[in-house]
Amino acid sequence: MNWLLIFIPVTLGLEYFAPSRSILVFAASCLAILPLAGWMGEATERLASRLGEGVGGLLNATFGNAAELIIALAALRAGLTDVVKASLAGSIIGNILLVLGAAMLAGGLRHHEQHYNPAGARAQAAMLTLAAIALVIPAAFRIASGATAEGLGRLSVAIAIVLILLYAAYLAFALVTHSALFAGEREAEETSEAPQSVGRALAILTAATIGVAWMSEIMVGAIEPTAHAVGLSKAFVGVFLVAIVGNAAEHATAIQAALRNRMDLSLSIAIGSSAQVALFVAPVLVLASLFVGPAPMDLAFPGGLVLMILLAVLITGQVAGDGRSDWLRGAQLLGVYLVMALSFFFLPGSPVAP
Amino acid sequence: MNWLLIFIPVTLGLEYFAPSRSILVFAASCLAILPLAGWMGEATERLASRLGEGVGGLLNATFGNAAELIIALAALRAGLTDVVKASLAGSIIGNILLVLGAAMLAGGLRHHEQHYNPAGARAQAAMLTLAAIALVIPAAFRIASGATAEGLGRLSVAIAIVLILLYAAYLAFALVTHSALFAGEREAEETSEAPQSVGRALAILTAATIGVAWMSEIMVGAIEPTAHAVGLSKAFVGVFLVAIVGNAAEHATAIQAALRNRMDLSLSIAIGSSAQVALFVAPVLVLASLFVGPAPMDLAFPGGLVLMILLAVLITGQVAGDGRSDWLRGAQLLGVYLVMALSFFFLPGSPVAP
Amino acid sequence: MNWLLIFIPVTLGLEYFAPSRSILVFAASCLAILPLAGWMGEATERLASRLGEGVGGLLNATFGNAAELIIALAALRAGLTDVVKASLAGSIIGNILLVLGAAMLAGGLRHHEQHYNPAGARAQAAMLTLAAIALVIPAAFRIASGATAEGLGRLSVAIAIVLILLYAAYLAFALVTHSALFAGEREAEETSEAPQSVGRALAILTAATIGVAWMSEIMVGAIEPTAHAVGLSKAFVGVFLVAIVGNAAEHATAIQAALRNRMDLSLSIAIGSSAQVALFVAPVLVLASLFVGPAPMDLAFPGGLVLMILLAVLITGQVAGDGRSDWLRGAQLLGVYLVMALSFFFLPGSPVAP
Repeated sequence: MNWLLIFIPVTLGLEYFAPSRSILVFAASCLAILPLAGWMGEATERLASRLGEGVGGLLNATFGNAAELIIALAALRAGLTDVVKASLAGSIIGNILLVLGAAMLAGGLRHHEQHYNPAGARAQAAMLTLAAIALVIPAAFRIASGATAEGLGRLSVAIAIVLILLYAAYLAFALVTHSALFAGEREAEETSEAPQSVGRALAILTAATIGVAWMSEIMVGAIEPTAHAVGLSKAFVGVFLVAIVGNAAEHATAIQAALRNRMDLSLSIAIGSSAQVALFVAPVLVLASLFVGPAPMDLAFPGGLVLMILLAVLITGQVAGDGRSDWLRGAQLLGVYLVMALSFFFLPGSPVAP
Repeated sequence: MNWLLIFIPVTLGLEYFAPSRSILVFAASCLAILPLAGWMGEATERLASRLGEGVGGLLNATFGNAAELIIALAALRAGLTDVVKASLAGSIIGNILLVLGAAMLAGGLRHHEQHYNPAGARAQAAMLTLAAIALVIPAAFRIASGATAEGLGRLSVAIAIVLILLYAAYLAFALVTHSALFAGEREAEETSEAPQSVGRALAILTAATIGVAWMSEIMVGAIEPTAHAVGLSKAFVGVFLVAIVGNAAEHATAIQAALRNRMDLSLSIAIGSSAQVALFVAPVLVLASLFVGPAPMDLAFPGGLVLMILLAVLITGQVAGDGRSDWLRGAQLLGVYLVMALSFFFLPGSPVAP
Repeated sequence: MNWLLIFIPVTLGLEYFAPSRSILVFAASCLAILPLAGWMGEATERLASRLGEGVGGLLNATFGNAAELIIALAALRAGLTDVVKASLAGSIIGNILLVLGAAMLAGGLRHHEQHYNPAGARAQAAMLTLAAIALVIPAAFRIASGATAEGLGRLSVAIAIVLILLYAAYLAFALVTHSALFAGEREAEETSEAPQSVGRALAILTAATIGVAWMSEIMVGAIEPTAHAVGLSKAFVGVFLVAIVGNAAEHATAIQAALRNRMDLSLSIAIGSSAQVALFVAPVLVLASLFVGPAPMDLAFPGGLVLMILLAVLITGQVAGDGRSDWLRGAQLLGVYLVMALSFFFLPGSPVAP
């Protein structure tokens, strides 16, 4: 697949010489991301087989979300808080429904039944529920009572600090005090064919992440004109297309891991990435908006988006709580994602309203 | 109990000669359904002991819901989409709260603790959650944003197709790839006293279904004047009375199975029947309404009904997720059903509003 | 800690001679409750080691809630139904989020992983879900459809009777038919150093309860002027401060039990106390309000409070359903409680609106 790397210079050339041909730019950057995401996946698996699946999954999610954080900061500076909220919500939903769904489906089609540590998965799912509650409450207050923007702003800052502290607690739990719950059964030892240093894997991961971030930024810039040309609504693009592209790395790695029957790693990436966006990226952006943006961003997301996050978290807790998975569960998660995407497709604009 | 079959001709006679005596018609058709439902239950158990509890439960649910589908199509042709939605919602709620609750209570009073395959039950419960999400989203869009009827119509058709495909996937899972999860422990072998061919059991099932459908239709026709005479609201009748009568067959079989300590079969019937209504009957009616009715039916159910479905699914997932059941769980499900029925009884009319 | 008992006469003296010094009265009554709550905890543990953890937990919850019931009846007579509802909701939320969270955190910091009977915990969590549903439905009807006060009143009385019957069924389950699920592993035998009669433990429990009730009433009377002086809103005080103080006994005992690795007892107290408030105390108050109050109290709680109860019950079911606990789960429950408290703190007044 490495020959697709040729599309990196192609994308850069198009972006420079023919920026108005947005559909071409979009397609080229899409193709350029594929081999880079593949590299990230391989490097993550190497690290996971050395450092444990919990650490490996966390590293993959972190590198994957780093790109999103950078792009979101740029959008904040431009005052596009609505766009930032839509892409955060899309990323949370997409990682647990699309990425986890595809991983469970692909893994389940190859393996009759797959297993993972239920206690680790429940800890991650509870983090997601917590994050959903932290989004539901400010949204409900805003809808029900017309809370003042000032009160919402202060509340958002306070909740953001609580979420960041809880995420730090979760990291201490997953990496230090209870790392065994996320470790997998380490049958991985055998699959790591070539002995390779942790340092080299980290270097590859970093380089590929930079490449993905660069290509992603070009692609995100091209998405809106492309969508306009094809006739899609802005809300659909923000919540679904941007999120799908922005999570390409997690996507590729989670599916690879599931195919190799390493479900602990796969869940760490998919659920862990959603939890990271909700408990770390979003709160950091709320705090950062106090300094970098023209206007502060609060945590009161539009009601439609909060409802979807809550429902997605609900079915994820049900599907990933007992330590086993099969292809039907993957199909169920993908089905929910499809229903949500269809509702944005056919009823454009509305869910971004409060 | 077979002497109750005398009420079949009695019902037909009353319906023909004294159709205005609606209370008598109602009572006679009620009594006539009892022995037929008993036959369906026996035939289902025979089939289950031959073909496995998963197939047996599916057959029972399918034959039971066939009657409902026929009646609903007649209502659609008459343009009564509100009535159809109310009876669909009542059927979904009734099967998991009333039928499953009564089965768990009856089984738990005879057996101290009963067991079933938790993975199979979770797969069915997740199908229900998925269906609830597919109903919540269009309802929320309609309430929040005043979506156009045209947009809702297209969205409903698209979601209906997704749901039917997912139901087909579920059948492939339950009957082909993972049928062991639904099989029970096949201690049934001993209980099937008389060797009887699958063909004969299927014939009995078909004949009894036709009888139940016939009697049900007469009963449904008599319900409204009866309710009026007794002083009950239309919403209460649509959501509770019609659904209770329409699910008499599932009801009888699920309780019989629970009493014989065959909880896998009992859950397959109760949860499976709800899932079939939500993922197959309702979508088929949406698609059929494009051709047979005066107006298309969408999937945007009234908010009150959607809320009840969501809450019913929530507690079912909690109660039927760990592979064991006892009488308290049955009492809890019945308690929720009673609370819902009381709210319709004391606050008539309101929940049918959006 | 017994020297703190000196604050009982101090509180009484202040209350009599200087009732306007509300901050002093508040602080003194707070300190006076601590040793009494400690006594209740010790007596409960003694009873639990004799009678089983289920009975012990129930006794602790009952004596703890007796104080609340007495105070609430006084508020009802004064016509303060809003205050009663706020403190009931605060008590339900506080017992499962604050008390259970603190117990799981404290226990988890001392013990790497703690265990309890998952079937017993699930039965209690399902009771809570049932209670949440019984509160959601009348609230939804009132918000959505402007139900008449008369209809809501009748519905509330009917639901109250259903809830009391279900609570009686739960007691029969927990104490008679399935008491083994709540018994713990009875390693307690060893920890009961001194042989002491059940009678003496019951006498201590009763005496300490009376003392706590007396001090609580004085404290509740002092809370409002104190809050006013410090600048807190009435809603925040009603839902959080009153509930925290009113549940001091459960709080102390649940944490003690968790530290001694008796999680079955700890969960029985925390979840059991919430369930008792929702399924027994609240319905009894609804029925009592028909006789003692100037106006009847219905079960239609304000929407904001019902939402918080539902979300708290949701995460409790997820966190306490698999038979194990660790410190992160405690931190997660406390995090949710903190988010809810912050939202009341920054957006005062609003959640008490419908």
